[in-house]
Amino acid sequence: MTPTIGVFDSGFGGLTVLRALLARLPQAQFVFIGDTARLPYGSKSRRTIARYAAQSAQFLVREQGAQFLVIACNTASALALDAIQAAVPVPVLGVIEPGASAARSASRTGDVLVIATDATVQSHAYAAACQALGLRALEKACPLLVPLVEEGWTDHPVTAQVIRVYLDELLAEAAGAGLNPDTLVLGCTHYPLLRPLLEQAVPAGMRVIDSAEAAAEAVVRHFPMEKSEERPLTAQVVRCFATDSVEKFERLGSRFLELPVGKVELVDLGG
Amino acid sequence: MTPTIGVFDSGFGGLTVLRALLARLPQAQFVFIGDTARLPYGSKSRRTIARYAAQSAQFLVREQGAQFLVIACNTASALALDAIQAAVPVPVLGVIEPGASAARSASRTGDVLVIATDATVQSHAYAAACQALGLRALEKACPLLVPLVEEGWTDHPVTAQVIRVYLDELLAEAAGAGLNPDTLVLGCTHYPLLRPLLEQAVPAGMRVIDSAEAAAEAVVRHFPMEKSEERPLTAQVVRCFATDSVEKFERLGSRFLELPVGKVELVDLGG
Repeated sequence: MTPTIGVFDSGFGGLTVLRALLARLPQAQFVFIGDTARLPYGSKSRRTIARYAAQSAQFLVREQGAQFLVIACNTASALALDAIQAAVPVPVLGVIEPGASAARSASRTGDVLVIATDATVQSHAYAAACQALGLRALEKACPLLVPLVEEGWTDHPVTAQVIRVYLDELLAEAAGAGLNPDTLVLGCTHYPLLRPLLEQAVPAGMRVIDSAEAAAEAVVRHFPMEKSEERPLTAQVVRCFATDSVEKFERLGSRFLELPVGKVELVDLGG
Repeated sequence: MTPTIGVFDSGFGGLTVLRALLARLPQAQFVFIGDTARLPYGSKSRRTIARYAAQSAQFLVREQGAQFLVIACNTASALALDAIQAAVPVPVLGVIEPGASAARSASRTGDVLVIATDATVQSHAYAAACQALGLRALEKACPLLVPLVEEGWTDHPVTAQVIRVYLDELLAEAAGAGLNPDTLVLGCTHYPLLRPLLEQAVPAGMRVIDSAEAAAEAVVRHFPMEKSEERPLTAQVVRCFATDSVEKFERLGSRFLELPVGKVELVDLGG
């Protein structure tokens, strides 16, 4: 049996979660939708985000036959996971709890740092999820990192310098608060593309946790299949939909997926 | 008689146009609206942008008594000026024609460079307006500049380096196309905050034209009043409205206005 897994994001950053899933579940089929017409979710109310995300979730389940949903969007995971779970009759997994769990496994000091977008940090969803696991977490918004990734400057000296500035501020704040952090959580689906630069910038011994990979690991535990059917990674098993801006999705998406995204299909979810 | 001038933007960048107006028309009253709930306009269709912008324009005229409108938004100026003019019974001025006219006055070679957001460049509105005035224009999208301004890094070495990269690419492209540019047009309402860094980065002798100031000059020509009533600049004469994200508007707006924006009032323009 070939399961169909639906992956949702407000944009296309969630393709990094899909990439991690493809590598781990080569026998599954995937349907991705980016609600690009209505991004950014970060500036919208919880109620609006819940309504928008539920529409995408229902599209994936009802029209595309998804039997499992991954909310590859930190804002929607932070603000609307309950509403999405209530809107569809299949299991729904967000990215925040898996990220916090992976940090719990990685950290020996119990103190972790989280970098994310402004909206995710303002929700304090990572801090709450970490605290529920006994960790102390310090969050920092890094608003320049998404535009730098989208500009393609993932290996640019400017980006290395911006990361240096943000991490220095965060480490100074952590020291001032008496924390001894040994783990950095990437709380944004764009950040895996900056992982090499981030690994170079963190203090020696600090672990870097990627929420996208942590979420993919959590999905794999739902599908304990044999690996006999393994086949080479290919975008053939992926269908991608977007609610607008198909051109930008097609242009930038393959950097996130590390595979051609092929033709992105436009879908209208209404207002 | 004290005229009331309405200023519209999809966000709050248009406050740089308002700032230029305040300095030139101290005897006027101003009402500003930022349609922050529905930004970015850049990724939306012409028809949607026209509908949204017309709603804001009607709010300024019908509910706030504006007798003159300035569209301090490059995307709306590029794609919806006609629709806005048709929606309200008062004069409506955009930012693109004044910017092109100022470039025409400044340039001796007839070749100009335009930097703007991706959406404005894709509309080619500046190139068309420049061409109509006999200028050759080369446009370049500089997507990192808006986030750098919003991060407050208007005098940061990283921003200087990013500007250097963009300008080097643009100058190389101009040389390759056989152009001899002597004028740089700032085609985004955020960019006036980068003017000092941009002035340092352009080749010696190149003029920098600010569309915000050019638009303000064009408005002044509609109000040939005496300067006897001149009074110190104050935000008292400005009412600011936003459709969402009042907090970000209040936090960042004063940097653009160079005055406290005071309390930003939330208004619901409907879907």
